[in-house]
Amino acid sequence: MKRLLAAEFLGTCFLLIGVVGSGVMGDQLSGGSDGLALLANSLATGAILYVLITILGPISGAHFNPAVTLAFRLHGEIETSTAIAYSAVQVTGGVIGVWLAHLMFELPMMQVSTTIRSGSAQWFSELIAAAGLVGVILGGIRYNKVAIPALVGLYISGAYWFTSSTSFANPAVTIARGFTDTFAGILPADVPMFIVMQIAGAVLAVFAARFLFSEPDS
Amino acid sequence: MKRLLAAEFLGTCFLLIGVVGSGVMGDQLSGGSDGLALLANSLATGAILYVLITILGPISGAHFNPAVTLAFRLHGEIETSTAIAYSAVQVTGGVIGVWLAHLMFELPMMQVSTTIRSGSAQWFSELIAAAGLVGVILGGIRYNKVAIPALVGLYISGAYWFTSSTSFANPAVTIARGFTDTFAGILPADVPMFIVMQIAGAVLAVFAARFLFSEPDS
Amino acid sequence: MKRLLAAEFLGTCFLLIGVVGSGVMGDQLSGGSDGLALLANSLATGAILYVLITILGPISGAHFNPAVTLAFRLHGEIETSTAIAYSAVQVTGGVIGVWLAHLMFELPMMQVSTTIRSGSAQWFSELIAAAGLVGVILGGIRYNKVAIPALVGLYISGAYWFTSSTSFANPAVTIARGFTDTFAGILPADVPMFIVMQIAGAVLAVFAARFLFSEPDS
Amino acid sequence: MKRLLAAEFLGTCFLLIGVVGSGVMGDQLSGGSDGLALLANSLATGAILYVLITILGPISGAHFNPAVTLAFRLHGEIETSTAIAYSAVQVTGGVIGVWLAHLMFELPMMQVSTTIRSGSAQWFSELIAAAGLVGVILGGIRYNKVAIPALVGLYISGAYWFTSSTSFANPAVTIARGFTDTFAGILPADVPMFIVMQIAGAVLAVFAARFLFSEPDS
Repeated sequence: MKRLLAAEFLGTCFLLIGVVGSGVMGDQLSGGSDGLALLANSLATGAILYVLITILGPISGAHFNPAVTLAFRLHGEIETSTAIAYSAVQVTGGVIGVWLAHLMFELPMMQVSTTIRSGSAQWFSELIAAAGLVGVILGGIRYNKVAIPALVGLYISGAYWFTSSTSFANPAVTIARGFTDTFAGILPADVPMFIVMQIAGAVLAVFAARFLFSEPDS
Repeated sequence: MKRLLAAEFLGTCFLLIGVVGSGVMGDQLSGGSDGLALLANSLATGAILYVLITILGPISGAHFNPAVTLAFRLHGEIETSTAIAYSAVQVTGGVIGVWLAHLMFELPMMQVSTTIRSGSAQWFSELIAAAGLVGVILGGIRYNKVAIPALVGLYISGAYWFTSSTSFANPAVTIARGFTDTFAGILPADVPMFIVMQIAGAVLAVFAARFLFSEPDS
Repeated sequence: MKRLLAAEFLGTCFLLIGVVGSGVMGDQLSGGSDGLALLANSLATGAILYVLITILGPISGAHFNPAVTLAFRLHGEIETSTAIAYSAVQVTGGVIGVWLAHLMFELPMMQVSTTIRSGSAQWFSELIAAAGLVGVILGGIRYNKVAIPALVGLYISGAYWFTSSTSFANPAVTIARGFTDTFAGILPADVPMFIVMQIAGAVLAVFAARFLFSEPDS
Repeated sequence: MKRLLAAEFLGTCFLLIGVVGSGVMGDQLSGGSDGLALLANSLATGAILYVLITILGPISGAHFNPAVTLAFRLHGEIETSTAIAYSAVQVTGGVIGVWLAHLMFELPMMQVSTTIRSGSAQWFSELIAAAGLVGVILGGIRYNKVAIPALVGLYISGAYWFTSSTSFANPAVTIARGFTDTFAGILPADVPMFIVMQIAGAVLAVFAARFLFSEPDS
């Protein structure tokens, strides 16, 4: 179990290094073009997700995401105590990843975001984004396990662009991003509603997947 | 059959979320650079196509496209009644996807496009784009089934750039994009001619494939 | 043999549609940013190469390139008469692809490029680019056949950027690009020297590969 | 052994052609947008890494990096004398690659960089970047050998963005980049500290991997 928790910790930590670091770099170099910054941010995030899931998936399943862990709990694949431990190290790893990213860019380590991310459009975006993410993972497990790293990386790279919230889709990532006042940040007051929608999306996807990815009927 | 139609519905719905949503986001962030917007649009569309075909292909074949469904009908792989049902849910799913994208970006749900997409150059582009798409799918089925999600995703990402119409290549997508007055929209009056050319391209590809992907002769 | 030549014709034709079309689109949308135009151009070219090699490779080997055909001739894998026929249809297919791209963008079909591409730096670039391309293909054949479409697509996407000539690396493509006065064009007077360097690069790679990709010695 | 050293030489040479060449081209075409230049630079580097590791990995292991060679030495997979020979040809190949890139862009062959890359943030970045790279390689060897070219290419493409140093992560590359006063350069006086941190990162990763990639404990 120690190895499993280490993998979840390290994976979520590196994921946040990727998300926050590439946001800072993209923002610094884009000369005010948010489009270019988001392009760098989305490509780097997809790339690091592919890498982390490939090498840590065989150890812990590479959730890095309490909403995904919840989905596996609902699926009956892990126990409640494991799910709680996973979620705790994911959040811890994520926050430490944000701090490491700040150190790598010579920014104050402790920050609190001031970026407002709120409103029904962004909440609905998070519902769809998380439902899609969990659905993609469950579909990958059912039909093409070896493709899961590419599926998740490409899904998230794409979802940065087709949701108005830029697809956080992950409570641990959302909490951690509350601790950075850079491109990727989110005002802490806006965090809870994002998480509510992400969990709702995950639950929705679990039920949809029971029908969609069941045994063939024709 | 219910599962098959659900997969076609959901896949086309999510495809349009990807196309329209990333168009809106790209347009908003690009600061007037249509090149950057189309880059985001083309990469996000390719990414979501790879994802959707990988996880829904094993269920319904992942057509998401009446021109592709027609090609399979001509190939004798599905029945006429199935082809009609597929096409109906593809169009319905596509339109609902557009509406969901609008909700995700706090835009009025009901819209009608005012973007003119017409003229012989764009019509010819759609003929080539659809012929290429159907040819690629038939070639993938013949020689490398596991590569089909990557083939279709990369083909469409590329075809956004090498056709003047940005490669709709899909009657359901074309109809659905009539319902959005954003980056990805098409004036409804311009829809029928696009569809005519897409169907002509698909038929052309089916016949070319009969020769090209037949048993080796040397 | 008819099927083989058709595959070489069609593949080179579509490759030029991809190269020239995406160059035109990238140029039109980039608002004068050659960087953005080349980015679109390089990504679209890599994507279409992956697609074409995957579906046509099992038929003809998917050379689409007289320098590659020459390498296979030197390797003794095809006969001289076949190599000549391949090269002829590659050039023909390429030129027709350029014309189709013009039609797709409502440009005059018949054009002659005025873009000067000359000088020792660009000539040396073509030598390196073609040597690398042929080396990559021979390495792929030796160690990882299934990766060849990705190898060639990614190599060319990258080589657009790390050579001053933007890596034509292909005599058929070079001749065909003499027929377009758009982003991808090359002044016809500059074509012969490019081809000389490409052939020299291909020959160099064949000899290097004999040593490098031979049986292990340790 | 001659073939092995030739592969390490050639691979590191071509890697530097890719890094330096795409930096020059990106810089020339970006119109002052460092973001666009780094995007081209990072994508081209990732692409060439995928290619080189795929075709040269079966020969020499495709280290191209003394820090990676050190990690394999610590793992007991190669002898000290081989490790020294590898490192020597990697540095030599890298420097020659820089010179070839200069020739390809009609730049003076002999250059010395004036780009300051220093400070604790960049040093810490190199520690993390190299630890991540070595960890990714060791994880790939343990769980998914066939994915290693994609793992390394995507990791480096991403790490360009999420580290303030743009992730050199390679002593041979760092030394070689001291010899170019272009986009990718590094002031020679700043080279030693980068190398110290890269080696520290590699050692750190070797020890972390012993725990993380050991036999399952649950």
